[in-house]
Amino acid sequence: MSERILVLHGPNLNLLGTREVAVYGTRTLEEINEAIRGLAKSEGVEVDITQSNSEANLIDRIQGARGVYQAILINPAAYTHTSVALRDALSASGIPVVEVHLSNIYQREPFRQHSYVAGVAIGQITGFGPDSYLLGFQALINYLRRGSTK
Amino acid sequence: MSERILVLHGPNLNLLGTREVAVYGTRTLEEINEAIRGLAKSEGVEVDITQSNSEANLIDRIQGARGVYQAILINPAAYTHTSVALRDALSASGIPVVEVHLSNIYQREPFRQHSYVAGVAIGQITGFGPDSYLLGFQALINYLRRGSTK
Amino acid sequence: MSERILVLHGPNLNLLGTREVAVYGTRTLEEINEAIRGLAKSEGVEVDITQSNSEANLIDRIQGARGVYQAILINPAAYTHTSVALRDALSASGIPVVEVHLSNIYQREPFRQHSYVAGVAIGQITGFGPDSYLLGFQALINYLRRGSTK
Amino acid sequence: MSERILVLHGPNLNLLGTREVAVYGTRTLEEINEAIRGLAKSEGVEVDITQSNSEANLIDRIQGARGVYQAILINPAAYTHTSVALRDALSASGIPVVEVHLSNIYQREPFRQHSYVAGVAIGQITGFGPDSYLLGFQALINYLRRGSTK
Amino acid sequence: MSERILVLHGPNLNLLGTREVAVYGTRTLEEINEAIRGLAKSEGVEVDITQSNSEANLIDRIQGARGVYQAILINPAAYTHTSVALRDALSASGIPVVEVHLSNIYQREPFRQHSYVAGVAIGQITGFGPDSYLLGFQALINYLRRGSTK
Amino acid sequence: MSERILVLHGPNLNLLGTREVAVYGTRTLEEINEAIRGLAKSEGVEVDITQSNSEANLIDRIQGARGVYQAILINPAAYTHTSVALRDALSASGIPVVEVHLSNIYQREPFRQHSYVAGVAIGQITGFGPDSYLLGFQALINYLRRGSTK
Amino acid sequence: MSERILVLHGPNLNLLGTREVAVYGTRTLEEINEAIRGLAKSEGVEVDITQSNSEANLIDRIQGARGVYQAILINPAAYTHTSVALRDALSASGIPVVEVHLSNIYQREPFRQHSYVAGVAIGQITGFGPDSYLLGFQALINYLRRGSTK
Amino acid sequence: MSERILVLHGPNLNLLGTREVAVYGTRTLEEINEAIRGLAKSEGVEVDITQSNSEANLIDRIQGARGVYQAILINPAAYTHTSVALRDALSASGIPVVEVHLSNIYQREPFRQHSYVAGVAIGQITGFGPDSYLLGFQALINYLRRGSTK
Amino acid sequence: MSERILVLHGPNLNLLGTREVAVYGTRTLEEINEAIRGLAKSEGVEVDITQSNSEANLIDRIQGARGVYQAILINPAAYTHTSVALRDALSASGIPVVEVHLSNIYQREPFRQHSYVAGVAIGQITGFGPDSYLLGFQALINYLRRGSTK
Amino acid sequence: MSERILVLHGPNLNLLGTREVAVYGTRTLEEINEAIRGLAKSEGVEVDITQSNSEANLIDRIQGARGVYQAILINPAAYTHTSVALRDALSASGIPVVEVHLSNIYQREPFRQHSYVAGVAIGQITGFGPDSYLLGFQALINYLRRGSTK
Amino acid sequence: MSERILVLHGPNLNLLGTREVAVYGTRTLEEINEAIRGLAKSEGVEVDITQSNSEANLIDRIQGARGVYQAILINPAAYTHTSVALRDALSASGIPVVEVHLSNIYQREPFRQHSYVAGVAIGQITGFGPDSYLLGFQALINYLRRGSTK
Amino acid sequence: MSERILVLHGPNLNLLGTREVAVYGTRTLEEINEAIRGLAKSEGVEVDITQSNSEANLIDRIQGARGVYQAILINPAAYTHTSVALRDALSASGIPVVEVHLSNIYQREPFRQHSYVAGVAIGQITGFGPDSYLLGFQALINYLRRGSTK
Repeated sequence: MSERILVLHGPNLNLLGTREVAVYGTRTLEEINEAIRGLAKSEGVEVDITQSNSEANLIDRIQGARGVYQAILINPAAYTHTSVALRDALSASGIPVVEVHLSNIYQREPFRQHSYVAGVAIGQITGFGPDSYLLGFQALINYLRRGSTK
Repeated sequence: MSERILVLHGPNLNLLGTREVAVYGTRTLEEINEAIRGLAKSEGVEVDITQSNSEANLIDRIQGARGVYQAILINPAAYTHTSVALRDALSASGIPVVEVHLSNIYQREPFRQHSYVAGVAIGQITGFGPDSYLLGFQALINYLRRGSTK
Repeated sequence: MSERILVLHGPNLNLLGTREVAVYGTRTLEEINEAIRGLAKSEGVEVDITQSNSEANLIDRIQGARGVYQAILINPAAYTHTSVALRDALSASGIPVVEVHLSNIYQREPFRQHSYVAGVAIGQITGFGPDSYLLGFQALINYLRRGSTK
Repeated sequence: MSERILVLHGPNLNLLGTREVAVYGTRTLEEINEAIRGLAKSEGVEVDITQSNSEANLIDRIQGARGVYQAILINPAAYTHTSVALRDALSASGIPVVEVHLSNIYQREPFRQHSYVAGVAIGQITGFGPDSYLLGFQALINYLRRGSTK
Repeated sequence: MSERILVLHGPNLNLLGTREVAVYGTRTLEEINEAIRGLAKSEGVEVDITQSNSEANLIDRIQGARGVYQAILINPAAYTHTSVALRDALSASGIPVVEVHLSNIYQREPFRQHSYVAGVAIGQITGFGPDSYLLGFQALINYLRRGSTK
Repeated sequence: MSERILVLHGPNLNLLGTREVAVYGTRTLEEINEAIRGLAKSEGVEVDITQSNSEANLIDRIQGARGVYQAILINPAAYTHTSVALRDALSASGIPVVEVHLSNIYQREPFRQHSYVAGVAIGQITGFGPDSYLLGFQALINYLRRGSTK
Repeated sequence: MSERILVLHGPNLNLLGTREVAVYGTRTLEEINEAIRGLAKSEGVEVDITQSNSEANLIDRIQGARGVYQAILINPAAYTHTSVALRDALSASGIPVVEVHLSNIYQREPFRQHSYVAGVAIGQITGFGPDSYLLGFQALINYLRRGSTK
Repeated sequence: MSERILVLHGPNLNLLGTREVAVYGTRTLEEINEAIRGLAKSEGVEVDITQSNSEANLIDRIQGARGVYQAILINPAAYTHTSVALRDALSASGIPVVEVHLSNIYQREPFRQHSYVAGVAIGQITGFGPDSYLLGFQALINYLRRGSTK
Repeated sequence: MSERILVLHGPNLNLLGTREVAVYGTRTLEEINEAIRGLAKSEGVEVDITQSNSEANLIDRIQGARGVYQAILINPAAYTHTSVALRDALSASGIPVVEVHLSNIYQREPFRQHSYVAGVAIGQITGFGPDSYLLGFQALINYLRRGSTK
Repeated sequence: MSERILVLHGPNLNLLGTREVAVYGTRTLEEINEAIRGLAKSEGVEVDITQSNSEANLIDRIQGARGVYQAILINPAAYTHTSVALRDALSASGIPVVEVHLSNIYQREPFRQHSYVAGVAIGQITGFGPDSYLLGFQALINYLRRGSTK
Repeated sequence: MSERILVLHGPNLNLLGTREVAVYGTRTLEEINEAIRGLAKSEGVEVDITQSNSEANLIDRIQGARGVYQAILINPAAYTHTSVALRDALSASGIPVVEVHLSNIYQREPFRQHSYVAGVAIGQITGFGPDSYLLGFQALINYLRRGSTK
Repeated sequence: MSERILVLHGPNLNLLGTREVAVYGTRTLEEINEAIRGLAKSEGVEVDITQSNSEANLIDRIQGARGVYQAILINPAAYTHTSVALRDALSASGIPVVEVHLSNIYQREPFRQHSYVAGVAIGQITGFGPDSYLLGFQALINYLRRGSTK
């Protein structure tokens, strides 16, 4: 049976491609999702994708992932920097997590340079625009197939 | 004419696979290099790879990259956290840079959680073991072919 | 066609006038809303007012404001100090924002003396009780009519 | 008429006993709730219990407690460290609050060693596993019957 | 008898409209003063206006305000961030004070984001250009007529 | 054979009930000790109680506890915040420790908001006046009988 | 020939006894000056007393003290915390200095708990109201007659 | 009946005049005590003087002072910077306290520039050598006779 | 027509050569001014020189420089570290500024190691005694003649 | 006549070898003392050894060392990090001091990584278990015989 | 015999004039060296110039300077902020040092605003582009000829 | 077969005995090396000694030590405080390391009071001049022969 991967988009990412394009680029969230689905298909894995502005919804989605998904790819967006609850949900899930960011968070405001999620993720990919998702998705698949990052 | 990419390994990475395998895994630097060369070949790009324990050698190598390489993939290792000179060399080169780390530096000692290089790189990939290199290499190729991360 | 302004009240402001009156005064949120509506009417602008205890609801409301409202007046209350997501939503909206507070936040606990919203607002008005809203509302109208704060 | 006490469980506590048992033990939330209900019964007080992953739901529940409950027992979990809004709701309620934690938060990560709730609670009980709830519940009853902690 | 209000402009504000217009706008201090006088007239209050580059002169003016003025509107400019003496003079005067700033000080250098005056003022209005003065002036009149901000 | 528990009161607690009653209440240390002895009796455990103003005496008492007592209940008072030696003695004893405080130390001066003892205690109970002792004593008995906090 | 001592009062001290009497007491500056003059007379020393709200005037007065006065008694008031220039003037004068404060500055706001003057003064006397001046004046006389504090 | 004042010397002050005379001068503790007794006699007050290297002894002495002494003069020496217990004892005593230091602690190592005692003392006198004691003793007598520092 | 340069000396510099010669040397301010005038003459530029202990006077002088002088050479002395107003005046003037210091401020107290002026100056010269002025004067002339530092 | 050296063991070191052997090893304090006495004998120096849990006793012992011992070897244990009084006693003694620690304090908790004693000791030896004492003892003998560390 | 001066250029300065010209200008290092040699010639001093990217090479060059050169002019570039070894070599050389920077380091990133070299240099010149070298060179010659900066 | 120990001297230590003798003493590095060789001989161990100013050379030397040396004695000098790469090389070598310093680094500048090496060394010996090496060498031999520090 093929692996199933859950992709989570945090708050305001539904606006991608329509606003602040100088910072975030012109591709819409749907275009990014299409690219992820394409990669999933070519790799033979299943994928479900959710965007939410609600910290609680994201937590609920993560809690429900256990036994259903083998991995989580998450762009926690603003909650990266403020949500211990999201971190706890990811940690409690026991599911491998990869954290991605569109922009290079280490070139932005100081409050964006700390991630609560990084402490419970396999790894972090930051700065490659929509590619961050695809690279992270690939990293998760590799991890699942190899069972380790070593 | 195909793109040429320079891969730089920082101090102590020549020891990979032979020491502290619990932290860094059992794959040797040469095995990682082989994987990078394989990816380069399949992508049709040229690649040169250098490891050095010397900050000055790394700087010299970066200075000489201009006009020769279209991109640099670097794991600055310990110099990530202490070398402004390396940052300045990368910045002065005007060449696109991707920064990679084997381990997730955000789960290690506090002094490893800051990177001087991140400020002048397109993006950073951390925590995926040898895959960090391959993901970063792919990211660079994508970037070169698209001309942007957006 | 007249301008439309969205007024947002953050968490716990629905309790105004019924609790902690020594700090927040005896006027209820409805009384404040009446005053705002009165000012809107006399200025010939339309106004919609929402209170929510939910960070996500506030974000949804802000995302939906684009193309509908020309300005947002917000008292983010406790989210002032903790919500990067709210800041991002306001910034992404591209709509002029004014931030108001009933009490003088610079005379309160240290954790209340920093605002994530201030960085993306035209200006901030703090300490004038219900008048903070009216002054902020007037400031927004002036801004819309003049097109600048200069 | 007997006292009524509201018991609130914060985010991720619904997972108790099923995950990370090395940290949080094997008792489920329902088992803990049963123990609380047993104590309530033997003390002759009424009790209502709610768990929520949503900051807003918890705030709503606290706002609705006035005039209905004489005391609140809360384990704010991750919101302990990040939610000023929860603190404000508890403070505005005017109802006596006791804060409890399963693990000893002062032996965990630095970001877990500060509580926004402690500043508006009668007291805090941390580190006794499920007993933290029972001790806190007893403390609230004593407080209600004595009218003071002195 | 009508109220009398003292308006104080701190150092370098005499240059308004003639320099750094990108930051401070093109209206001169005299134009702002005219607008304040106009508002005073329409509200039926008296107003005196002083600008000084001297911390001591500003203190003298504040000390002399007692018994003469019912309120002070002040833009302390650079002294906002450095003058404890100005704060002490305002506090000692026992007269209601409103603090205003042309630019949004929370979007400027870190050293401009702390105000010694805020601790002894009714409230602060920042970021609305010349309107900051008019809004602050109105706020003072409201305060005088209502006797409170509640 | 029944358990034996050592109760230790730190510096200045001998003054309880006679001074600063607004902060610490009117019950004397002897009254608190009586309540502890009552609880011990009803629970069938033995208890010895010592108060000392001397850091060295408290350390000596803890060192002598090994093999004699199965648990220690301690209110380290001012030494909470300054004594690494007390912490080391408790840690070296290998005996389960519960830390209690009469007042809610998280609502007091910043220097009282850190405990050297918390790092080596099972848990901490703070803010319930004399009840803190009884709750802590009960927690210790539960712990001894259950062998764990989980 | 008898010693001459210069007494300097910093900003806002001219208001003593007339404002904020809860903090600073009801004695006026003139009454304090009379007490100083009385002590000077009984000790057979000459005294000149100046109050100024101006940092520059105080500096000028200190610069002019050389060769005229054998000692300076100063209450720098708000300039204690902000004026390096005053410190430099006192240091450059080469005249023994004693620093006094009416209130205990170590029980006030954090920004009042640092003195630039203390680093160049013989000693500091804080918290004794008008007596701080008399104690400091006596300390200076003792110092002059003994030639040392030892 | 005359007032009785307790004078307390903290750790290592018994060595005065015999060691580190460059820092502390050549007068012995006994010589200082004689000077204090002389001042007491001329002022008609009784005085008892104790030196101890033991924090606990000093606390015991302070606890026993209530009802016996009307005031305490203390040079806490090294305990100034480390003893919360001493602070608590002084605070609990309810007796007026004056804190003195031989050297100007604000010109010494950073760790000597904070006093736990200052927060519970009427005032502090620092830097005048043995005169610090005499000035402090005089300040206490004035305070007792006037009933206030104002 | 030749360039005109304004030279400003900050507080206490009038004492040069007469006090603290170990730190500041034996040359008087007049001797330094003579050297500056000599250099001006040989370079064919006009120069005016002002010393003031008053922050306000220095600001007034800077405000009046516009249209009269092409450059400002300033040793802000103690105001370097405390005066935002001086910085604002220099910035508002739009005139090229060079900052000089007699002593090497980076070898002095920590509070002297930050300059508010450096942020608005072309460059800073520190540590060369009177030569700092001459080097800075030359730097200004070079800058004026070349129109850039590049 | 042979040199005499005083060896001081701080709090809790009497427990060595019996508790926390994973951290401190299995050798008892008496075994360590025997090794020190053996070294003393072979080097022809006299040695006295004291352990105390009391800060005051250690201070008394140090004060009494003058004129009796030529050197002090001390393991201040927990007092390393908290006792300014111990530092002052060692400094006042004028006797050469060497500080030793069993464990490498720079690999332990942050609060153990600062020593008040290091500032007044010749040198520090940390991390070598019982050997730390013997190495330190030898260092002291070398120092006494050579009269310097150079 | 004429003086000999060693000029040292730190890492990446060999790229001057060819890269990042917006920041560092268009003049090449060789052009700057020519200007220095010209000044040396006109002043009648000898000069040797070295650039190196290697911290060790720079240290070797400094160690070899003793007895050969009377002064060192250094632009440590990135090593300014990170190299204690360079500082130690300069300090050990006993040769007068002047530190220069092309850009005004106090207007750049925070990590560039601290210099390890400043603590062992006569003075620092920052912000004047190539002129920084010439001004620094002149300053060294003046210093050598006058034997002091006073 | 006898043990082999590698002794490494960091940057600038080749200057010992010839410069800054007030700080580092008059013994040359060769004299120290002779003393180490003498001790090695008398203990029957082999020793190789290297000094380098180059961080990379030191790293190379450490990397080459594996399988050749059983222990490393290192005085990292300035690299103690700045080199993560050196720390990583020592850690990767898996060879027991002892860190020594001539001067007591805890009595020097704050930036010298942190060691990156201490975290990966058995222990540290600081302050005993050349004896630090001999004590450290002895400590290593003891460690090798005993197999532990316990």
